[in-house]
Amino acid sequence: MLIELPKHSEVFGSVKIYELQKVLKLESGKVVAPLMRGFSREELREIFSRMAVIIPVKDEKLHLFDGVVRSIPEDCKIIVVSNSRRVEQDTYKIECDLISNFHKVTGQSITIIHQKDPGLSLAFQEVGYDAILDKTGVVRDGKGEGMVVGILLAKILDCDYVGFVDADNYIPCSVNEYVSIYAGVLSLAETPYAMVRLHWRYKPKVMEDRLYFRKWGRVSEITNKYLNMLLSMKTGFETLIVRTGNAGEHAMTLKLAEIMSFSTGFSIEPYELIYILEEFWDGETRFKDALSSGISIYQVETMNPHVHEEKGEEHIKEMLLASLSVIYHSKLAKDDLKEKIFEELKGQEIVKSKREIKKCITMPPICDIDIKKFKDVLERYSETLKTFH
Amino acid sequence: MLIELPKHSEVFGSVKIYELQKVLKLESGKVVAPLMRGFSREELREIFSRMAVIIPVKDEKLHLFDGVVRSIPEDCKIIVVSNSRRVEQDTYKIECDLISNFHKVTGQSITIIHQKDPGLSLAFQEVGYDAILDKTGVVRDGKGEGMVVGILLAKILDCDYVGFVDADNYIPCSVNEYVSIYAGVLSLAETPYAMVRLHWRYKPKVMEDRLYFRKWGRVSEITNKYLNMLLSMKTGFETLIVRTGNAGEHAMTLKLAEIMSFSTGFSIEPYELIYILEEFWDGETRFKDALSSGISIYQVETMNPHVHEEKGEEHIKEMLLASLSVIYHSKLAKDDLKEKIFEELKGQEIVKSKREIKKCITMPPICDIDIKKFKDVLERYSETLKTFH
Repeated sequence: MLIELPKHSEVFGSVKIYELQKVLKLESGKVVAPLMRGFSREELREIFSRMAVIIPVKDEKLHLFDGVVRSIPEDCKIIVVSNSRRVEQDTYKIECDLISNFHKVTGQSITIIHQKDPGLSLAFQEVGYDAILDKTGVVRDGKGEGMVVGILLAKILDCDYVGFVDADNYIPCSVNEYVSIYAGVLSLAETPYAMVRLHWRYKPKVMEDRLYFRKWGRVSEITNKYLNMLLSMKTGFETLIVRTGNAGEHAMTLKLAEIMSFSTGFSIEPYELIYILEEFWDGETRFKDALSSGISIYQVETMNPHVHEEKGEEHIKEMLLASLSVIYHSKLAKDDLKEKIFEELKGQEIVKSKREIKKCITMPPICDIDIKKFKDVLERYSETLKTFH
Repeated sequence: MLIELPKHSEVFGSVKIYELQKVLKLESGKVVAPLMRGFSREELREIFSRMAVIIPVKDEKLHLFDGVVRSIPEDCKIIVVSNSRRVEQDTYKIECDLISNFHKVTGQSITIIHQKDPGLSLAFQEVGYDAILDKTGVVRDGKGEGMVVGILLAKILDCDYVGFVDADNYIPCSVNEYVSIYAGVLSLAETPYAMVRLHWRYKPKVMEDRLYFRKWGRVSEITNKYLNMLLSMKTGFETLIVRTGNAGEHAMTLKLAEIMSFSTGFSIEPYELIYILEEFWDGETRFKDALSSGISIYQVETMNPHVHEEKGEEHIKEMLLASLSVIYHSKLAKDDLKEKIFEELKGQEIVKSKREIKKCITMPPICDIDIKKFKDVLERYSETLKTFH
């Protein structure tokens, strides 16, 4: 893979946000140059072998899920966290069969667990990580919860990197591009605390009529606008650096993942940025090593479009509300910004009053979890965990 | 790449048509098994180095053309045959600059020529290949003509395989899948005269509203139906073996390409099948070596969708008319079949009378061309040919 190196970045305390980098070529030999970097397949394979690709899935079309699984580079460890139905139709079982066959044929390392696994809930209870549990003591529904479970499994598997891939991707080969970008870019980071977020630029006419695409693009633009506004208001200098406020496809080093707080639902990705800025811009953080090493956030423009399952009109409003709420409730947001956000949401007929702009649920960093205890309880009591090596 | 091996094929004289094979994994190690074959990257690279990927282009969106070029595996030789405008806007020049930069950055072997190049026309005149020329002695407009030019350049470059890729592909990484399939499948053929044609199965709801996709899918189904009907009527046994009547993405060994007759416009792909059947089923053919070795036609279902530029409603009718005309006018088509085709076209309000079902223009095999003379004239008189090695 041949990728531009970013020419420009902006610094906010210990946080460095890089401008958008483009992918120049999907495959290439090794190239080391001032303005670009080419990763040979051998280089990427070495990094893949230390990367977990986490696929949260919930009742997605099975052939899409299947295509995504089949497109992960073979040296990566795949971790599927499923919250699919088990009654009426045991979709989870079908996913397991799919994965079992996949492993038989390919030999690739793959793990699957159900988000509602009682052993999993017990493991969280035993290590005192209640923020992920609902009132009944079971892991809550939600993609953020699935991501946290995935990160823990990746930590148990001793991975250095975690990359997230959605299961409803219509373009399996784009997954291959995403994971290659994750590997290449993260391997270049000069800090152990790095994140890469993906973006697709084009809104070609043929796809403009496709609501799903226009929608996501529109929400993304608005989220980016207010994230940049938050930065601009605080520094006094206008910036447009953030282009990946709602980047579903993203990855990070495990060292960063461990000290991240995650939210849930549509606020996940914007909240990651808000959290990092709150901790490491000029906040008081307990993560001194990260503070001194710095947190690097890379943004990469992919060659391939992001084409996900059409989820419906209501979705956009929810997405926008969740994303903007995160910015609204940030410690870093001044009253002017809050007003502007409220006006935006009112104008879009998403809220009528400020009370409707709710704070999101967050889950604390997993670094405090006794990983050995978690692993022991999980392995002993899990009913759904399946590991294929 | 891991691919199913076909379990079933049907034989028509010296022609063997294989049932659809699925791609099981985009990347894999080398796997040799009864039911599947996995090609490692090293294996594929060796085959890529003997393959020319031909990209006919005419005024496509430049960023799409760019994405496609950047996605061809680096060991392949790229041959661009452009019929883009040169006046008002010199699109051809922009394509050349794009390719020149691409080569500077990647070092990949790439050739570009303009279809209307006077030296090219002269070369065809000098070797007596007039069927490709229009009344003014210049290479005719048309994708088929572009393909023939590409095949000749591939022959000059001493390639063993030629693969075709359209320049208006919205999903650059799918091009990588196509070329890998071309390489893998053709390398396994037990005859030197082999072809592989691609197909995408799914018509997911999210894409059903997308006219462009539904259209192409619909035309394909009808073309396949009548091709299968032609086969069924002649053998007395019903068959559904043909699934790739209108496969835009396809490849073949150079040995087969040289003895192929090509038509032009939308009839290209169905005509290839008709021609092969007419020559090698129980026709009198002069190609004795091919007759005894056999012609193998592989059909592969890709993991990635085929998403091309939206070309408009009128297009479908033209496509259907051209495709069905080819079958209609085949020596192999009995009167019953002709009647059915006429009824189909009438029902679709594409024709009112049989006279409107025209025979397509065809160009004879290039094997008779004095390739040395062609090369000499081309190199001496070409004004647009650019080769980057």
